[in-house]
Amino acid sequence: MKKTMPPRTPAHRNMLIAQSGGPSMVINQSLVGAVFEARRQKRIGRILGARHGIQGILDEDFIDLRKQTRATLETVAATPSSALGTVRKKPSAADCEQIFEVLRRNEVGYFFYIGGNDSAETAHIIHADARRAGYPLRCFHIPKTIDNDLRENDHTPGFGSAARFVACAVMGVNLDNRALPGVHISVVMGRHAGFLTAASALARVYPDDGPHLIYLPERPFDMKRFVRDVDAVYARLGRCVVVVSEGIADAEGNAVATKFLKEVDSHGNVQLSGSGALGDLLAGQVKAGTRVSRVRADTFGYLQRSFPCVLSDVDAREAREVGAFAVTAACNDTEDGSIAIRRRKTRAYKAYYERVPLRKVARETHHMPARFINRAGNNVTKAFMDYAAPLVGDLPKLGRLAC
Amino acid sequence: MKKTMPPRTPAHRNMLIAQSGGPSMVINQSLVGAVFEARRQKRIGRILGARHGIQGILDEDFIDLRKQTRATLETVAATPSSALGTVRKKPSAADCEQIFEVLRRNEVGYFFYIGGNDSAETAHIIHADARRAGYPLRCFHIPKTIDNDLRENDHTPGFGSAARFVACAVMGVNLDNRALPGVHISVVMGRHAGFLTAASALARVYPDDGPHLIYLPERPFDMKRFVRDVDAVYARLGRCVVVVSEGIADAEGNAVATKFLKEVDSHGNVQLSGSGALGDLLAGQVKAGTRVSRVRADTFGYLQRSFPCVLSDVDAREAREVGAFAVTAACNDTEDGSIAIRRRKTRAYKAYYERVPLRKVARETHHMPARFINRAGNNVTKAFMDYAAPLVGDLPKLGRLAC
Repeated sequence: MKKTMPPRTPAHRNMLIAQSGGPSMVINQSLVGAVFEARRQKRIGRILGARHGIQGILDEDFIDLRKQTRATLETVAATPSSALGTVRKKPSAADCEQIFEVLRRNEVGYFFYIGGNDSAETAHIIHADARRAGYPLRCFHIPKTIDNDLRENDHTPGFGSAARFVACAVMGVNLDNRALPGVHISVVMGRHAGFLTAASALARVYPDDGPHLIYLPERPFDMKRFVRDVDAVYARLGRCVVVVSEGIADAEGNAVATKFLKEVDSHGNVQLSGSGALGDLLAGQVKAGTRVSRVRADTFGYLQRSFPCVLSDVDAREAREVGAFAVTAACNDTEDGSIAIRRRKTRAYKAYYERVPLRKVARETHHMPARFINRAGNNVTKAFMDYAAPLVGDLPKLGRLAC
Repeated sequence: MKKTMPPRTPAHRNMLIAQSGGPSMVINQSLVGAVFEARRQKRIGRILGARHGIQGILDEDFIDLRKQTRATLETVAATPSSALGTVRKKPSAADCEQIFEVLRRNEVGYFFYIGGNDSAETAHIIHADARRAGYPLRCFHIPKTIDNDLRENDHTPGFGSAARFVACAVMGVNLDNRALPGVHISVVMGRHAGFLTAASALARVYPDDGPHLIYLPERPFDMKRFVRDVDAVYARLGRCVVVVSEGIADAEGNAVATKFLKEVDSHGNVQLSGSGALGDLLAGQVKAGTRVSRVRADTFGYLQRSFPCVLSDVDAREAREVGAFAVTAACNDTEDGSIAIRRRKTRAYKAYYERVPLRKVARETHHMPARFINRAGNNVTKAFMDYAAPLVGDLPKLGRLAC
């Protein structure tokens, strides 16, 4: 009879993966990339997916990711929004204790948390507590955020596709505004970082195309100056397309939107999306402060992170590869971490991935660097366009009649 | 020497074409279809495009559409929003006098106006005045409206693509809401007709998918019942996706949005779009009337009529063909009119075109027939889905994990 080997505890352990924070168009690519890679790794046993992030861990609400067919996983990968469900919840000390009990009971040795900097923080807390408790856990954060605001990363999975949606949307808005002139204000997601708002600049095809003005959270927003800027563009072109980040804040750092919206989540974040209040406020100010009668505002809302079929190919591919890379790193490295996307200094766009310490990514926000913003603080630079263009991919070809 | 023939006045005349009302994603297909056909017609001389509808006629602000290259026209056809520019203006009696002077001076014998029922009315006024003045003018309306509310038409160019955008957007919203549960309210364009709002129903893939509730302008909107409906769905599914037309009105016919927005155009239409006020109002009512804390509203705004690259192929093709058909009819018929899209009673979808009198299309609105709306007035029927599906085309394939 063949002798049964005793189980090698740290070498053959179960894996748990979860999704957290705001969904994105490619967050399931990372999930599927991780699952496919985990299936190749001999030391990983069961592959569990927790539903709705740490809430699913606390409730032991798991989906068996080994039993999914390849076809199902491929379709899920191409489907926007977190297939496992997500949550906006910061674990308390009591939550963490309970999480360990669940991890122990399910012999989980590999934990992956896909999300933004709040999620990296959660992963970091679990990592530190596991260490303190002497529990052998490989704990990895897999980056995801349409805001593109994770430190250590050249850019993050989810940004390219959301940026593509925003650029396409502003292309359309600009064409609409050119056909039926007036002032149009688009409000774009991005609590503290302006990358997604800035990506609207890629919508420009002709020299007089909008967006004519771009306002980012990285520069203090002054209402009077904003109205003056709009008035000046309108005087010059007879129309004006403005794109504004939902996170614009005054010189004291108070978000313009917080004057109107009060809801706060457990990370202390005020609700900025899912309301048209900021756009309507700005439109009202333009109407009151100029002689323009046709002023409209559109808030892109959840469409920019969930719209199916407007994808950046580069973004989808990288999201998949980052998920796989995290699993490989967890199986081969002796350190926990987060995966960062770096860019090679080559002429043609090329990215590579690296493990970075969790604490370097957790909580803190990566902002737009100064070289991406113009001096007046109401537009972006060519350096930003060069940075963002390969992440978004070729945009639809638009035409005009010859005059 | 070859003898010069005297010009045959009614047989060889210049053509003038213009675009009016709200832009759509395929309105340039109709323009380009008409221009290509006009170039084939020997009796048409110059092909002029008036910029910004009748405003461009009054100002004699024309673009030469004969000198455009084929490549330019093809790119313009694939570009959303009115390439000639558009206008929301009803001509006064004085305007009409001036228009005739311009038409005479430019030897215009063929006039085409692309737009909705307001535009059909404008075309009808010009037609009637031309007749009264004894001026030989072939005057055609080419249908265009994302609202799909033109009488005599099975559907209108522009609807299929806008409906595709709305269905895709609600697919994404539903996935987002499933991942991060709560109540989500989408506000969709459609002043008096609910077709575009109703098209959101095509977003459903699984039995529990949203939209769970759909409110149309064709049924009186009762705020209390709305909140009760949402509460009931939330109690059953733990989430609720609602789609509401911007034009919803109470039992007295007062649009819910008019309580908040006052701007009116020269056709007497109140501004409904370009503001998030209605969505925010409804979200506030749900928050106040239920125990749901996470309530979000997105107003799709101008994106649904201008977004590039989310097109219905059927819609784009028909828009092109309708433009060409109008020119052929104008050259061969002795009557003015509008072009209507009819549907054959075949199993596979098939459309054909017909000339109909202008007065039958002008001004009046075509509403959703009763068989398209459920009894409770908060959803659509299978008959509507069967009607709309071929106009929108195949939607993105979405997947779920097996539980």
